[in-house]
Amino acid sequence: MRIIASPVEAQTYCAAQRETGKQIGLVPTMGYLHEGHLSLVRQARAENDLVVVSIFVNPIQFGPSEDLASYPRDFERDSQLLAAEDTDVIFAPTVEQMYPPESVTFVEVTGDLTKGLCGARRPGHFRGVTTVVSKLFNIVRPHRAYFGQKDAQQLVVIQRMVADLNFGIDIVPMPIVREPDGLAMSSRNRYLSPDERQAATVLYRALQHAKARIKSSVRSAAEIIASMQSVINQEKSAKVDYIEIVDANHLQPVGAIRGEVLIALAVYFGKTRLIDNLRVDE
Amino acid sequence: MRIIASPVEAQTYCAAQRETGKQIGLVPTMGYLHEGHLSLVRQARAENDLVVVSIFVNPIQFGPSEDLASYPRDFERDSQLLAAEDTDVIFAPTVEQMYPPESVTFVEVTGDLTKGLCGARRPGHFRGVTTVVSKLFNIVRPHRAYFGQKDAQQLVVIQRMVADLNFGIDIVPMPIVREPDGLAMSSRNRYLSPDERQAATVLYRALQHAKARIKSSVRSAAEIIASMQSVINQEKSAKVDYIEIVDANHLQPVGAIRGEVLIALAVYFGKTRLIDNLRVDE
Repeated sequence: MRIIASPVEAQTYCAAQRETGKQIGLVPTMGYLHEGHLSLVRQARAENDLVVVSIFVNPIQFGPSEDLASYPRDFERDSQLLAAEDTDVIFAPTVEQMYPPESVTFVEVTGDLTKGLCGARRPGHFRGVTTVVSKLFNIVRPHRAYFGQKDAQQLVVIQRMVADLNFGIDIVPMPIVREPDGLAMSSRNRYLSPDERQAATVLYRALQHAKARIKSSVRSAAEIIASMQSVINQEKSAKVDYIEIVDANHLQPVGAIRGEVLIALAVYFGKTRLIDNLRVDE
Repeated sequence: MRIIASPVEAQTYCAAQRETGKQIGLVPTMGYLHEGHLSLVRQARAENDLVVVSIFVNPIQFGPSEDLASYPRDFERDSQLLAAEDTDVIFAPTVEQMYPPESVTFVEVTGDLTKGLCGARRPGHFRGVTTVVSKLFNIVRPHRAYFGQKDAQQLVVIQRMVADLNFGIDIVPMPIVREPDGLAMSSRNRYLSPDERQAATVLYRALQHAKARIKSSVRSAAEIIASMQSVINQEKSAKVDYIEIVDANHLQPVGAIRGEVLIALAVYFGKTRLIDNLRVDE
């Protein structure tokens, strides 16, 4: 396994590999890997000749009051996990290498896709995501890139960007990986106290509750959201940031459930903000 | 010579060519080709195995009151000129192919580089340029791309974008090509009436005048700009949009001439806005 920090070196290496006819799969991560990340790596391993995993905590996707400084990092552990998955390359640049002081270019998906959900609560977040992903795509030039469904809005935004800017890269969405009690795996789960960790299982229960109501033919999004709120309120430490039901492709709020919808939520437990979602087809 | 309209087809073709080890040179144009464009094509021909020339009048780099509708087009003549230069591929997509209705992604170089000069007079212009150039770069994935120095600010902005987003493409700047009387070649010269065409030679005279003053040790940018204004005022049909002297790398206005400067101007002749510039090293 090769560990590369320099963007130029990573680009040169990947281009040379590509020229030998190898298919390249990229898994972009912010490190502190869990089974969700590893499921992406395994899929990339199965579908490509060269598997590149990037580890980079991207400062420009964090807001000024967010958790950039405390975001968990453990490169040693990450590299052991990736070696065990037969990863070929870890690309782990520094902030200075990715954003030299003179850097001023941004890639932005405008319009409704980035306006709602996390976009409304985290101004500039998706601009930071699309900019860094563009850079990673240009450095690695993968044939395929793997993203988890947990960041549902991110996935749709990146698919839009790839189409709009003609990247010519297959975006492979992968299902959410959950703990046995239903909590979606997230690097941020480590922030949770034992009590908060227990309380956080309410997210998946609320999503399952919503799914059950849709399956029993409730069609009012407002009614479902209100009952999800009630479920979450049973946990005193939980504070809802948003609960929304949007159409699965355009991410616009729906009044009545029809076709495939995305039920998405963000909830604070103490200072820790967790997101989760479920796609449901009426 | 292959003429391709479809972005997907162009991307597939170029990727296959690249995989055979061919070096690819791209010359992005808006068509209505003149000797300036052809000098780029010749340089690309000399340095690459596959020469791709794009012809696309990019609507998103035109302001609402600008000349998008009247911009000159002559694909028949362009393709004859390009065939004579041994061009391999003309990529000539439609607006609908480049910007389907759902397209919402933009690439933007923020900050001082795009604030002054043409950026100040044409809001959104450079965002349109960097977006379309990103798309062309992703479709063709050239090793080298060729741009004329006449669009001096565009060249610096694209160099910045390529570095910031890690495109890994060599940007090759090519000198301005001029008519025998000094007028910089431009597709927009065809808008000029015979009188305006004659008057437009004043641009190069004003630039030469400025260069002579710098060479004779005048160091005040304001003084040089004022005397350029006087030269241009001798032509009644000329109306100055801007005359600026900026440092050649950061495009920021200088008070005193030192090191390499860019003398840049934009002047209207009737409704036609022409730009020109000269780099001068004190």
